Amino acid sequence: MAIPEVKALVFDTFGTVVDWRSSIIRQGEIFGRDRNLTGIDWTGLADQWRAGYAPSMDRVRRGEQEWTPLDKLHRQRLEELIPKFGLESLSEEDRDWLCRVWHRLDPWPDTVPGLRRLAQRYLLAPLSNGNVTLLANMAKRAGLPWDCIFASDIFKHYKPDPETYLGAVELLGMKPGEVMMVAAHNYDLQAAASHGLRTGYINRPTEYGPLQVKDFKATGDWDVIGESMEDIADAMGC
Amino acid sequence: MAIPEVKALVFDTFGTVVDWRSSIIRQGEIFGRDRNLTGIDWTGLADQWRAGYAPSMDRVRRGEQEWTPLDKLHRQRLEELIPKFGLESLSEEDRDWLCRVWHRLDPWPDTVPGLRRLAQRYLLAPLSNGNVTLLANMAKRAGLPWDCIFASDIFKHYKPDPETYLGAVELLGMKPGEVMMVAAHNYDLQAAASHGLRTGYINRPTEYGPLQVKDFKATGDWDVIGESMEDIADAMGC
Repeated sequence: MAIPEVKALVFDTFGTVVDWRSSIIRQGEIFGRDRNLTGIDWTGLADQWRAGYAPSMDRVRRGEQEWTPLDKLHRQRLEELIPKFGLESLSEEDRDWLCRVWHRLDPWPDTVPGLRRLAQRYLLAPLSNGNVTLLANMAKRAGLPWDCIFASDIFKHYKPDPETYLGAVELLGMKPGEVMMVAAHNYDLQAAASHGLRTGYINRPTEYGPLQVKDFKATGDWDVIGESMEDIADAMGC
Repeated sequence: MAIPEVKALVFDTFGTVVDWRSSIIRQGEIFGRDRNLTGIDWTGLADQWRAGYAPSMDRVRRGEQEWTPLDKLHRQRLEELIPKFGLESLSEEDRDWLCRVWHRLDPWPDTVPGLRRLAQRYLLAPLSNGNVTLLANMAKRAGLPWDCIFASDIFKHYKPDPETYLGAVELLGMKPGEVMMVAAHNYDLQAAASHGLRTGYINRPTEYGPLQVKDFKATGDWDVIGESMEDIADAMGC
């Protein structure tokens, strides 16, 4: 059931397109082994790193911190966690490499096959709280076939601020109903829908591992609902 | 002679990456034949359309017209030219299709092979006065391997305004000297260099056909100078 008006699909990235948690744990373990760091709780680090995400954006949103690209928020949070996780010995170079794990996240297995199908028919772009280079490096490494990139540092706003959804619609030169937001998070789709965008939900029930407390199913009347990117491609007639 | 600091290359598009003049003439002739329009001077239309480019951006720059994406400037200029070229019979749909020829420009023959080589080692993006959708559609059709897109409507400024070069550098999260501007126009490289970017010149002596009056050679001390995108790839160690 393709929606005839839709010309472009924009995607939440962390959790929807890429599996940040498994990627960080896996790369952390390899990184630690290479440096003879033993007993580091990489799973705990991944979870606590991500737990700092929403609060750090809220600080910027409330004006307590000036506009800050996500790369820098990730680095600030990492510095807070370094003493908790016994990583004080890491050099500046190592800290930078570790922080750039967010540029090296792996896609879910269905992501690239689904996006490649969708790319035949639609303009595709991330609409993410990541910054441009983070998203560009991620796409280059993972083979994500984006046609352009909508990043928070283009709008100087994070989702779910209206400036992000409406900013992407404006740069696409389209009407809101010609753009579909695809996300694994109901709050993101609710915000997009409130500005007139179409919506696609992908269920990612393992995104947060055992810590996941929500987004086990669609909780809104989204236009398309699926278990994978390939389901979205099926539904969109690709 | 690769330049070790450089991590990203940004490209002027019209004339440097794509051959706008031949593309418009060719598509105009096919379009006219399909509609039984005879005696239309498509070459003259291409040349006069492009001749409106700098003056239309200047009107925006001087504040005589509010910020306007290039798609709309192209459409305004087309409407001025329609009576001069005997195209009054064109429908709204045809005018839209004709205006979108700027989304369907063909690359110079060396462009895609050169960019593919450069993409192995560098982040690549257009830094163009085009708008995001124009550049995204062009890249999708022509197979330009951009990692992200820097368009005038992201910055709400046209080149050579400083906001464009410095805006791209900021979104890349890099220092100016880590970014190389590649263009077939000396004025563009002069502006980029004045903000600390590195520079690459490609000679495109046939861009304007018999109307070309400048840019037959590098007139500045650019870091890299070549006759094709493949020459730039050679020079950058790809």
